[in-house]
Amino acid sequence: MAFLALPAGHSAVAAAQIPADVKVVDLGPDFRLSDGAAWARHYSGPHPGRWITGIPELPGARAQIKTASRVAAPGCYATAAILALTPLVAAGLADPADVVIVAASGTSGAGRSLRTDLLASEVMGSASAYAVGGAHRHTPEIEQALAEAHGASGQVRVSFTPVLAPMPRGILATCTAGLARPELFADDVRDVLAAAYAAEPFVTLLPAGAWPATASVAGSNGVHLQASVDIRAGRIVVVAAIDNLGKGAAGQAIQDANLMLGLPETAGLTAIGVAP
Amino acid sequence: MAFLALPAGHSAVAAAQIPADVKVVDLGPDFRLSDGAAWARHYSGPHPGRWITGIPELPGARAQIKTASRVAAPGCYATAAILALTPLVAAGLADPADVVIVAASGTSGAGRSLRTDLLASEVMGSASAYAVGGAHRHTPEIEQALAEAHGASGQVRVSFTPVLAPMPRGILATCTAGLARPELFADDVRDVLAAAYAAEPFVTLLPAGAWPATASVAGSNGVHLQASVDIRAGRIVVVAAIDNLGKGAAGQAIQDANLMLGLPETAGLTAIGVAP
Amino acid sequence: MAFLALPAGHSAVAAAQIPADVKVVDLGPDFRLSDGAAWARHYSGPHPGRWITGIPELPGARAQIKTASRVAAPGCYATAAILALTPLVAAGLADPADVVIVAASGTSGAGRSLRTDLLASEVMGSASAYAVGGAHRHTPEIEQALAEAHGASGQVRVSFTPVLAPMPRGILATCTAGLARPELFADDVRDVLAAAYAAEPFVTLLPAGAWPATASVAGSNGVHLQASVDIRAGRIVVVAAIDNLGKGAAGQAIQDANLMLGLPETAGLTAIGVAP
Amino acid sequence: MAFLALPAGHSAVAAAQIPADVKVVDLGPDFRLSDGAAWARHYSGPHPGRWITGIPELPGARAQIKTASRVAAPGCYATAAILALTPLVAAGLADPADVVIVAASGTSGAGRSLRTDLLASEVMGSASAYAVGGAHRHTPEIEQALAEAHGASGQVRVSFTPVLAPMPRGILATCTAGLARPELFADDVRDVLAAAYAAEPFVTLLPAGAWPATASVAGSNGVHLQASVDIRAGRIVVVAAIDNLGKGAAGQAIQDANLMLGLPETAGLTAIGVAP
Repeated sequence: MAFLALPAGHSAVAAAQIPADVKVVDLGPDFRLSDGAAWARHYSGPHPGRWITGIPELPGARAQIKTASRVAAPGCYATAAILALTPLVAAGLADPADVVIVAASGTSGAGRSLRTDLLASEVMGSASAYAVGGAHRHTPEIEQALAEAHGASGQVRVSFTPVLAPMPRGILATCTAGLARPELFADDVRDVLAAAYAAEPFVTLLPAGAWPATASVAGSNGVHLQASVDIRAGRIVVVAAIDNLGKGAAGQAIQDANLMLGLPETAGLTAIGVAP
Repeated sequence: MAFLALPAGHSAVAAAQIPADVKVVDLGPDFRLSDGAAWARHYSGPHPGRWITGIPELPGARAQIKTASRVAAPGCYATAAILALTPLVAAGLADPADVVIVAASGTSGAGRSLRTDLLASEVMGSASAYAVGGAHRHTPEIEQALAEAHGASGQVRVSFTPVLAPMPRGILATCTAGLARPELFADDVRDVLAAAYAAEPFVTLLPAGAWPATASVAGSNGVHLQASVDIRAGRIVVVAAIDNLGKGAAGQAIQDANLMLGLPETAGLTAIGVAP
Repeated sequence: MAFLALPAGHSAVAAAQIPADVKVVDLGPDFRLSDGAAWARHYSGPHPGRWITGIPELPGARAQIKTASRVAAPGCYATAAILALTPLVAAGLADPADVVIVAASGTSGAGRSLRTDLLASEVMGSASAYAVGGAHRHTPEIEQALAEAHGASGQVRVSFTPVLAPMPRGILATCTAGLARPELFADDVRDVLAAAYAAEPFVTLLPAGAWPATASVAGSNGVHLQASVDIRAGRIVVVAAIDNLGKGAAGQAIQDANLMLGLPETAGLTAIGVAP
Repeated sequence: MAFLALPAGHSAVAAAQIPADVKVVDLGPDFRLSDGAAWARHYSGPHPGRWITGIPELPGARAQIKTASRVAAPGCYATAAILALTPLVAAGLADPADVVIVAASGTSGAGRSLRTDLLASEVMGSASAYAVGGAHRHTPEIEQALAEAHGASGQVRVSFTPVLAPMPRGILATCTAGLARPELFADDVRDVLAAAYAAEPFVTLLPAGAWPATASVAGSNGVHLQASVDIRAGRIVVVAAIDNLGKGAAGQAIQDANLMLGLPETAGLTAIGVAP
């Protein structure tokens, strides 16, 4: 197993030089999107195409990843939102045309870039928004997954706002969607999530009344979920917590690589965070 | 000037014992809501009625506060959301029937309660959601203000999710609403906010491209705003930063009291935060 | 293996009821001190006596722990200071009669006590001192270990000040001692530490020029050390970083239990922290 | 009043071009040290000489600053340590030949330099040491002030270790010194500090039993002090909290400028921090 560190947009060049029988998990964005127009809205250069999405918990994904030679692990925000919402869209509970996501991330999501706004003095004690209004590159990844969960015909509209929170790691994604059927209760939503993830080693639907906290999955590949229904507002609210460097990045890539190499899926990974 | 500290629901009892010519600003929730049903959804005991809402920046509010003997300062989350959205609802740009707000707060919003989930070890390095699904008490305050901005007849639906962020103070409210007219751009939204707050000493619409950070208003009565339009998602996104203990609580109460007492509105207050 | 949670001073009562052939690691203070007077200065009730000190890295300790039925794991601050200074005292480089230690700890060192000064709002963004002037209970543990490293006859004087730092876990101990021989350089000090811990799986003397940071050992049983000599001030300065819940508590107890049970010493433990 | 921002070592060049009747407070190190050898140990280039030390609370300093045209404000760590220890050295209680200081600082002490070790991801949740072993440039400033408090003849030896704490601002300095007379108690030490700072608007000796926390002076020009005596260790321990950007930098410079310009010393300054 080897690791390459390349700027976004360079995976395609590198991948072309790697023999087809060498298995590759790409943590960059190059091969995440089917839609060339979506690619062009957020990236420059030619659209490299699409590899299999590296979220084993998606329906049918695990079997595909096991036999794949090329897998594209999605972005950190996208992983959290996709795990929160796709089962509910697939089951017809959540309206994919009316999705609003606000997600707080720790600073390691930006890597070790030497930027003034990532200095400790600027970040500690302060929350701030960025890439507001649909500008964040993970937006089309979420749209694509919701569209695929929904089926080809329906409209998908996702408003996604990322927030920089004063913590080193972790993503807390508050994912809301219009209630597709007005008579639904929180238990209906929870039942769908419980069924979707019953056999998953890394995804935990918390007991009713408990809400995710990022520290509980820090340093792990775990995902914590909880859901509610706001009858008056007509919305489902699902909150997901992941470690942006775990299930949101390296952890999920290792999970993918484990599957591709025939290793136990959980090898080298844990679902238990370092908290406090 | 005197200060009384009373549990929620007790202001009404205390207020009844204060002569009518003694001016009172209530920081508690007792006199914030007109609607007895909204009161009953979130509080117990009889509905105490409503005083003038203590946000001087609302249309017509300043004049009313100046002559009032009783003013109810709204909740911290409510103040941020109301300042972000009411001008856009009033101007017909934002759809009050389709509002989704996710707001991160520092821990001082919960006061000095001795609760395990407020211990430093639990909070530092961790973001978490709470009161999800419309359960937070500030929701009806936001609904009431948006309804009043919109006019009596229309429907108002607000999905509000509070998030506890690992910082001592500050609220960052990401306030989204359906775009009431599809042809609008960010500049249209910014123009409305700029006009609404042009003469306000404590509200700053940031220069285009700059997004609010809570540290910039920490320790102050200031409000920082920025707005965008997500054409693809069909939503307006307004981000507001306040100090939950400043404009979200004591600062705004002093601003109200200054007006009621005929003092300069800014006496004892600043709009400049302590950052970093 | 079983765990008991008891208030300080109650281990002795519980231990008396546990058969002698059941192996016990005590994380409480009851059996840490030989000296009844030192016990009486910091605790109430009769002096329970002393068990073997559960720091396997001390000279001869590993063999004793392997055959022991009763082991007393030392306090978190004491572990950091003892690992930093005992090799230098034993080698005659550091003067045990002139030791000054200031150590910053994360808040989990105080457990989950519901105290106002441990609330997130009080701690975040703030450093504070406590138990100043020799009042902290870990002081006699450090004195005892330095006296034993030095040999019976010499005087030991330790000034220890704990500082509460705004972080959930970790101890950074700055341990200074008078230079016993004026001609020593940093390399001499580093050589002694390198030799003392060359074979230790959990203790790392950092490369020259790199200084310990608590995040590097967070969530682990690791210890990071670095040393310098201040010729002008005539002092050795050793900085140690541990996780107060790892090598400072549960991690070290598991390390002890592994030895007592004939398991690999590192079973279930890691020396690699979760950073950032 | 004007502000110039220059790299360390450039104040001397700039100062030479400013007419003598223009009053200057230098926040840089150029004119802090009398001793050319001390200068050469920590800085390069010729020794620019010495201006009056800009700590008005030092004996006789206020009168000198009032009539001075040139004042050198000392470093942030130095200000905290000097205020903590000089009255006790002057009174013969603390031994200036046996001083050990460990001080934790927030990250703004390093300015806005784009350094990897100052990134939020590296700092949050982590304490680390740096410039260990007498390497920090504020060390000779402390030595100089203690020597002047002590009188010309005595030896001064200061071991100073700075620690980077995960907070945006604040210095907590734990300052210990050998007890010059063995019969002293904490009250004796407190009495000396109380007398030294009785009339000072910015220095507060906390009530017995209360220990300084940096948040209490954040955003202010205030100084909080507390002291204890460790009889067994034979040391005085004084803890000082300041805001490194307040009394440790800009606040003190304004305090100096106020005096030089004949303004009220407290103009534009407060002693009350923004806490939490």
